[in-house]
Amino acid sequence: MDQEFASSLLENAVSEFAKLPGIGRKTALRLALHLLKQDKERAHSLGEAVIKMRDEIQYCRVCHNISESEVCPICSDPTRDTSTVCVVENVKDVMSIENTHQHHGLYHVLGGLISPIDGIGPQDIEIDSLVERVKAGGIAEVILALSATMEGDTTNFYIFRKLAPYPEVKITMLARGVSVGNEIEYTDELTLGRSIQNRTLFSDTFHKEG
Amino acid sequence: MDQEFASSLLENAVSEFAKLPGIGRKTALRLALHLLKQDKERAHSLGEAVIKMRDEIQYCRVCHNISESEVCPICSDPTRDTSTVCVVENVKDVMSIENTHQHHGLYHVLGGLISPIDGIGPQDIEIDSLVERVKAGGIAEVILALSATMEGDTTNFYIFRKLAPYPEVKITMLARGVSVGNEIEYTDELTLGRSIQNRTLFSDTFHKEG
Repeated sequence: MDQEFASSLLENAVSEFAKLPGIGRKTALRLALHLLKQDKERAHSLGEAVIKMRDEIQYCRVCHNISESEVCPICSDPTRDTSTVCVVENVKDVMSIENTHQHHGLYHVLGGLISPIDGIGPQDIEIDSLVERVKAGGIAEVILALSATMEGDTTNFYIFRKLAPYPEVKITMLARGVSVGNEIEYTDELTLGRSIQNRTLFSDTFHKEG
Repeated sequence: MDQEFASSLLENAVSEFAKLPGIGRKTALRLALHLLKQDKERAHSLGEAVIKMRDEIQYCRVCHNISESEVCPICSDPTRDTSTVCVVENVKDVMSIENTHQHHGLYHVLGGLISPIDGIGPQDIEIDSLVERVKAGGIAEVILALSATMEGDTTNFYIFRKLAPYPEVKITMLARGVSVGNEIEYTDELTLGRSIQNRTLFSDTFHKEG
């Protein structure tokens, strides 16, 4: 877009918005002009919230989830089951799993997945610290809750191998199967195959959901 | 979305992003988490750009376009034709028309259109100041470049009536017709009708575009 901006201040704000993922120049301009029409406080509260968040948020020393203290609220919650650790890719996945209310243990946020194409190796994500946690003892089960993608599988296998020296720890992974609400007709064959292999007792499923 | 945020700082930034038009909670979370992963400078430059823009941008005393000085660069450009004033709804329309490179005169930004439904009357937009500019003299033509909507038409008629006492000023409006690149089959009948009424000499059009 070859737009003439009447103001370098506007141009600057537009450029900054346009650096955000999924925000093009056109949307960025719309956002900037919207803020121009609002009270000054609106622009101030957005600007300050962004700066404050970036400056003050820390990462939990234990699980690497975002936190405002050295140890996050989940890790320091005495009612959580400290013997079960759910391994996730990122902070968003912690939120998604928390929303299901089905996991009562702790988390371990890897901060990414192994992806040779993107140059991300095991050393670039929090795998060593996971092994340290397991080594320290007290963990009975590690739930691998990574995406069902090539990168997720690679990372799953790598962690599985790294935890082999601790056979007392049960390593589980998320079930793969037909999405709730999805029609069989539109379920891909790989998923359908896995869902047959891993079929569950009807009475079990019924009781769990009830 | 019933999301548990591990941090009120994150929650705050997400809420602020979500107040922007077209940004839902999910996108807002994506933007905030993206900034968390970036260098601190990125969050600072976005936050500061937004605040600075809102605090420092002024509106041109003459045409009400955004400006960093009392009179905007277009109004103070000695090469522009001061006898032709193009009336537009907003700052974005100034940019769009500037991008066409077809208007060499000045602008007058109304800051909205008359819209009784939204409670916007003639007094809420910059019509009086337009009449003042015309009254002050030196303007030969006022081009009405408002949207081809009910509100645009209402505003066009209102301005037309307000400028009736100055018959020496020619009042023109944007041509309505088939959009360039559009097929006749998909052009609505009103537009098609107007494009027949206002048909232009083929040789004229050809020369203008050539």
